[in-house]
Amino acid sequence: MDKDISQAVISRLPRYLRYLGELKDKNVERISSSELSVLMKVTASQIRQDLNNFGGFGQQGYGYNVDYLYSEISKILGLEHQYNFIIIGAGNLGKALGGYLNFEKRGFILKGMFDKNPDLIGTEVRGVKVMPMEEVPAFIKANNIDIAVLTIPKEGAVLVAKVLVENGIRAIWNFAHVDLDVPEYVQVENVHLSDSLMKLSYNISSYMESNKDKEQ
Amino acid sequence: MDKDISQAVISRLPRYLRYLGELKDKNVERISSSELSVLMKVTASQIRQDLNNFGGFGQQGYGYNVDYLYSEISKILGLEHQYNFIIIGAGNLGKALGGYLNFEKRGFILKGMFDKNPDLIGTEVRGVKVMPMEEVPAFIKANNIDIAVLTIPKEGAVLVAKVLVENGIRAIWNFAHVDLDVPEYVQVENVHLSDSLMKLSYNISSYMESNKDKEQ
Repeated sequence: MDKDISQAVISRLPRYLRYLGELKDKNVERISSSELSVLMKVTASQIRQDLNNFGGFGQQGYGYNVDYLYSEISKILGLEHQYNFIIIGAGNLGKALGGYLNFEKRGFILKGMFDKNPDLIGTEVRGVKVMPMEEVPAFIKANNIDIAVLTIPKEGAVLVAKVLVENGIRAIWNFAHVDLDVPEYVQVENVHLSDSLMKLSYNISSYMESNKDKEQ
Repeated sequence: MDKDISQAVISRLPRYLRYLGELKDKNVERISSSELSVLMKVTASQIRQDLNNFGGFGQQGYGYNVDYLYSEISKILGLEHQYNFIIIGAGNLGKALGGYLNFEKRGFILKGMFDKNPDLIGTEVRGVKVMPMEEVPAFIKANNIDIAVLTIPKEGAVLVAKVLVENGIRAIWNFAHVDLDVPEYVQVENVHLSDSLMKLSYNISSYMESNKDKEQ
């Protein structure tokens, strides 16, 4: 069923889940697409279209059942599974990601951290010890690791990704500023922070430009 | 000129810039759209279409001049300006972002860091001291700050964003897991890390589903 859903719709689902989670926390039982539209600042028709992709969970005159919609979107996003993950790179970014308790609530369990810097080896994040890079292959196999998070500089990332894949990793959350060359069955999600910063600078400077035009 | 360019094209420009920068570093002077296509793993027609948005910098039979294209894309992205930024939240993520020298190379200059945690106040990232939150308003005004990076938990983020805007901030790079409510003239770029992790889990589980189908 899910196969024809566009990545654009998929990208919006975590935001629905966030708002629905907040409604659940406030014990709201049901919500109409127009109420959700006001909260989320998107059109009600966009909401109906997005949710129709999954057969549509709303009922005319009733709206959406918050609990039900929350759990259906969770399932669609694969969040009913538990995923074991490791972090490669125990610098500040690796430590920040390792420290997020919210990931664990969603079923992403931090099993190990690795670094090549001897000063970091043996330090801990939430009780998880940083180990040397040489131990990555054996650790992946012994601990059923699903996801590797790459928070190392781009220079080492391509080679490390190769080692990860050879040892059975099926998904990489890549923060290294380089495109990885991995087989098609390996899922990669890139977070290129400086690309995001450049989008911001584009929007700042194009806003300034358009206001300059108005003044002329 | 830039006003009608879709955000999808804008999102792809930093990646062009990255590849062109690497070609520049290797002293490559010109490249055809088909060579660039092989490198970047996108179709040559996509490349030509994207770059045509800016009047097209290629010449038939010659290809693109790497230096020229690099500098034109830099200009489009607003990277010929210098931006002063502050980081609100000096935890691991704040420290990671404050430490990236690449941002400075692109013209993003870290001027100050702030936190409400007394243990962090006075600590340093690349010579920049962490200051108490109370000093944010005066600091923004005295130092011509363009961008604020928000790396604090979502609970405080909405209120802090309000204070930032009241004191003249025009752009926010938001890592707090909440949608900010700011005036339209304030540019916001959200990096919601757990949304990105959910996209990864969607892709893992939908890959597994589709392979299950094949086996049946």
